[in-house]
Amino acid sequence: MPSDFPLGNLPLGDLPLGDLPLVDAHCHPVFVGSPGSAGSAGSVDRGEFERMLGEADRPAPVGVSYADSLLGAAVRRWCAPPLGLPAGAPLDRYLDRRADLGPVEVARRLLGAAGLSYLLVDTGIGGADGADSDWWSVQGLASAADAVGREVVRLESVAEGLADSGVAAADFADAYVDALAKATRNAAAVKSILGYRHGFDVDPRRPSRAEVTVAARDWLRRRQEAGAAQSIASRARLSDEALLRFVLWSGVDRGLPVQLHTGFGDRDLRLPSVNPALLQPMVEAVEAVGTPLVLLHCYPYQREAGWLAAVYPHVYVDVGLTVGQVGAQAGAVLAEFCELAPFGKLMFSTDAYRLAERYLVGAAQFRHSFGRLLRDWWRDGDLTARDVERVAVMVGADNARRLYAIDG
Amino acid sequence: MPSDFPLGNLPLGDLPLGDLPLVDAHCHPVFVGSPGSAGSAGSVDRGEFERMLGEADRPAPVGVSYADSLLGAAVRRWCAPPLGLPAGAPLDRYLDRRADLGPVEVARRLLGAAGLSYLLVDTGIGGADGADSDWWSVQGLASAADAVGREVVRLESVAEGLADSGVAAADFADAYVDALAKATRNAAAVKSILGYRHGFDVDPRRPSRAEVTVAARDWLRRRQEAGAAQSIASRARLSDEALLRFVLWSGVDRGLPVQLHTGFGDRDLRLPSVNPALLQPMVEAVEAVGTPLVLLHCYPYQREAGWLAAVYPHVYVDVGLTVGQVGAQAGAVLAEFCELAPFGKLMFSTDAYRLAERYLVGAAQFRHSFGRLLRDWWRDGDLTARDVERVAVMVGADNARRLYAIDG
Amino acid sequence: MPSDFPLGNLPLGDLPLGDLPLVDAHCHPVFVGSPGSAGSAGSVDRGEFERMLGEADRPAPVGVSYADSLLGAAVRRWCAPPLGLPAGAPLDRYLDRRADLGPVEVARRLLGAAGLSYLLVDTGIGGADGADSDWWSVQGLASAADAVGREVVRLESVAEGLADSGVAAADFADAYVDALAKATRNAAAVKSILGYRHGFDVDPRRPSRAEVTVAARDWLRRRQEAGAAQSIASRARLSDEALLRFVLWSGVDRGLPVQLHTGFGDRDLRLPSVNPALLQPMVEAVEAVGTPLVLLHCYPYQREAGWLAAVYPHVYVDVGLTVGQVGAQAGAVLAEFCELAPFGKLMFSTDAYRLAERYLVGAAQFRHSFGRLLRDWWRDGDLTARDVERVAVMVGADNARRLYAIDG
Repeated sequence: MPSDFPLGNLPLGDLPLGDLPLVDAHCHPVFVGSPGSAGSAGSVDRGEFERMLGEADRPAPVGVSYADSLLGAAVRRWCAPPLGLPAGAPLDRYLDRRADLGPVEVARRLLGAAGLSYLLVDTGIGGADGADSDWWSVQGLASAADAVGREVVRLESVAEGLADSGVAAADFADAYVDALAKATRNAAAVKSILGYRHGFDVDPRRPSRAEVTVAARDWLRRRQEAGAAQSIASRARLSDEALLRFVLWSGVDRGLPVQLHTGFGDRDLRLPSVNPALLQPMVEAVEAVGTPLVLLHCYPYQREAGWLAAVYPHVYVDVGLTVGQVGAQAGAVLAEFCELAPFGKLMFSTDAYRLAERYLVGAAQFRHSFGRLLRDWWRDGDLTARDVERVAVMVGADNARRLYAIDG
Repeated sequence: MPSDFPLGNLPLGDLPLGDLPLVDAHCHPVFVGSPGSAGSAGSVDRGEFERMLGEADRPAPVGVSYADSLLGAAVRRWCAPPLGLPAGAPLDRYLDRRADLGPVEVARRLLGAAGLSYLLVDTGIGGADGADSDWWSVQGLASAADAVGREVVRLESVAEGLADSGVAAADFADAYVDALAKATRNAAAVKSILGYRHGFDVDPRRPSRAEVTVAARDWLRRRQEAGAAQSIASRARLSDEALLRFVLWSGVDRGLPVQLHTGFGDRDLRLPSVNPALLQPMVEAVEAVGTPLVLLHCYPYQREAGWLAAVYPHVYVDVGLTVGQVGAQAGAVLAEFCELAPFGKLMFSTDAYRLAERYLVGAAQFRHSFGRLLRDWWRDGDLTARDVERVAVMVGADNARRLYAIDG
Repeated sequence: MPSDFPLGNLPLGDLPLGDLPLVDAHCHPVFVGSPGSAGSAGSVDRGEFERMLGEADRPAPVGVSYADSLLGAAVRRWCAPPLGLPAGAPLDRYLDRRADLGPVEVARRLLGAAGLSYLLVDTGIGGADGADSDWWSVQGLASAADAVGREVVRLESVAEGLADSGVAAADFADAYVDALAKATRNAAAVKSILGYRHGFDVDPRRPSRAEVTVAARDWLRRRQEAGAAQSIASRARLSDEALLRFVLWSGVDRGLPVQLHTGFGDRDLRLPSVNPALLQPMVEAVEAVGTPLVLLHCYPYQREAGWLAAVYPHVYVDVGLTVGQVGAQAGAVLAEFCELAPFGKLMFSTDAYRLAERYLVGAAQFRHSFGRLLRDWWRDGDLTARDVERVAVMVGADNARRLYAIDG
């Protein structure tokens, strides 16, 4: 630290973000079914556990383990201690211990250790809370984490629910707006998976009512042909470009912040087509309305996302998914997020799903890596001690509290 | 440092580039109007100052400050001391002090502290020097910085000036070549903003004279309709693809190095379309002529730019804009510039504009971050002490002196 | 290192990978002709040496040296000591010493110092072994390196050889499959240069036999017109999209791992079109067959490549070329490779060609930089000591041994 830099002492304890309570601005339900349930995460075998951790959905080839990765190492580092094992314990020992404790106890410990104050839960995948449910959703998660839970409503899920209600194509547009208003009555945000269902090479304009009706007619017919909801083939999912734009614009008009999946995820997307830079025409079209757009994940396009946040007032960036998945590299990736994005537009989340491990890894890795990054910048004279404290609180909690009005 | 590495002592003082005089190979005029002038940078309010610093042109949303960023922190770090404040002083205190000193004194101090020996000023935006002017351009900047000033002529500005002279479409091509020759009589380089006005997805060939005449006719008519120069709407700017190619090729034929805006800037560009890798066909078309092409800024495509510099003899890379805007991350970004680009093709500049702060931040952050990078490489045994000294002088000054022949 | 992290002592010596024997999973012949031979690498002049090192094929402009680069510094660092010079010796002194020793002795020393146990040699460029040959290919290299050599067969070269044999267009498809089977009888892998010859924007499907015949007819005719094999113009190379797909699919059907050039190389490719992310449709089409696809080089798209390896079971990533060319930045780039790619899918290679220096730089820089990276992750508590040892051995050798079955 240059001696002429009036920094004072670094706040938040000596190390990475101390016990700053985090707002998890984008996450999903966790499976806590008992052993034997379909897709149980309680006594999962190793292959199943590995796939639930990352974005792969098929077994690794012979000789390869998905857990031999920075992600796997991060799970063993952060999640073993709350289960009573030393950090870095071998995965097989970890899974044995996990099975002994049972899924509910494991989830309770891991969520409890994550230090979250608010959870914004995208309920569009995973199950709902309930006495008989094997899933923890908004209420179950909030209770286990000792946090406040709020819902994020997935725009496409509302449309698919509406489709199954027997709506007529001609009524689809109005009925969707009504259904969205109802579904989001207590929601903190809406979420778009346009990136998965089509990619960002879309006409940025609102579709006309006639376009919506024509597209809805076609989609509802295909969906009906595909049969009952339980067996809906991917071809009957909402993937029509005009309808995707329609639900996105409906979300924009709803006025709540719109979270958009951008960047990597599972193989169901085409990576080059979810580069957030491709959203620029849509960003400009939305600007007049003023609705905030939150770019989720972003990796490996975090620099492009940061630029959008730097030049468009209503664009925000969320580091969820990315920070947990890249483990030891989280600091380097977070630094790239910060290159252009103002700190007031950057937000923490875990994007956790299915496994409670993803909550703790996301939170602990962020706390550790972002804390170290800020500390290094302070040591090198780039930030003052007061900057470090403000930025940590902004990115970890306050930006999300303000943007999603979650104290209201 | 490995003991078997024959390094000797690190030159240039103990730390980052000591007081190496830098050649600022691409910069712009600074506004030094007195309080009350339109767009005054003297007693600017905080919002205005923040927007002038970065690439945003609209107010930040409630709760967000563009200065809560690595850029803002860099300004407080590097610019506060020359104004008599401690490094890292709060921005409000900095702006108060700035207003007390007045814009001319502030600009004089910041430019004086930047340690520049030459300034290559793109005069295509900002005002001209003059007794009554609120701007410092080539002469004013050079005088304040105690440096030698040379002009960089913006190709599109010459075309727009010609258009306002009443030229006939049929004469446009010849008249442009004459006007460019005249405008560049004492210039060090020309500059293209093809990236802003169209993007790099262009036909790389020279347009025919017939194409130019047809395109000029259309453009001159639209420009006339748009009315007097003072009220020219953006639709009347030079943005026709054939004319943009024509002015670029005229610049190539002029023989001076051609600086090209690539990578990020303000929202007036589409980020994916200014990836310098897209210039490859144009780079190849220009190669036979031999005119050097300098890729400015490049971020976040600095690796792509480095590859072009590594495989095409006539391609150079300029780190301006990027180094200042990413503050604490400048070292990491500069390292990426260096991955493939030969050191003899890499050049420093500030790309400063309007605010004198941008001169000092660009220069001081480069000096600090590139110096540290070279020192770390020396410590790790990657470069010898002699390498470090040579590379620092090459990138900071000598490459630009040779390429732009600015001592001539 | 956090005190609660049960790491034990770091294996592999104190520093970077000690003397771990490496499997070079992708490399090329080396020229060892005596002074005076065409293209001699023995007593090369400095300009020639510089171009052979990197990816440039034309002289650098006045005042610029390609060896003033991280690559040039890495050569002086790693290759000077085996020639009896201090690390970092000036290049002119290095070249003098090189000429004194003669090309065979230089190659013997550099290959010997690289510490390679297996060499997988792409024989598609460079000369073949033989008493009168100026080239070391599979046998010559293996002998000099004291390693086991295996061949990698270039799919396009087999097609071009077949074309010169006078095959009829109607027989081309069958004859190619036969020729490939014969050429690969003892091969470890096949290699595709689709990226160079067309780019990845191709129809992912197998071409029909009729398409192949039509395309072969056209190509064979053009090739015949271009004259004897010695003077084949680039227009007569295999570059037809349908034929390129056909040879790639024939390689896939052959069942050996398919190595694909992706990312940077010389100027003969268009960088944006070799982004491995563009291969996603092809990757999915190949998945049903199960043939492993190995993405070579990848830079600057190593993050995109890592994602493909994380979500597609049959996709692997090879760090060759990149690690050597970026010198001091190899650690940062390797870290990006590791962000998503499972360690079991990441492989070392040198991609060395023509100059023996490229073997040693590739191997030594990898050993040094990957070793430091693993050590830093261990120090920071990201990996355990056991993880470090396993990952080093996997990436440096065992993944390639398993994937290419080279012990068989």
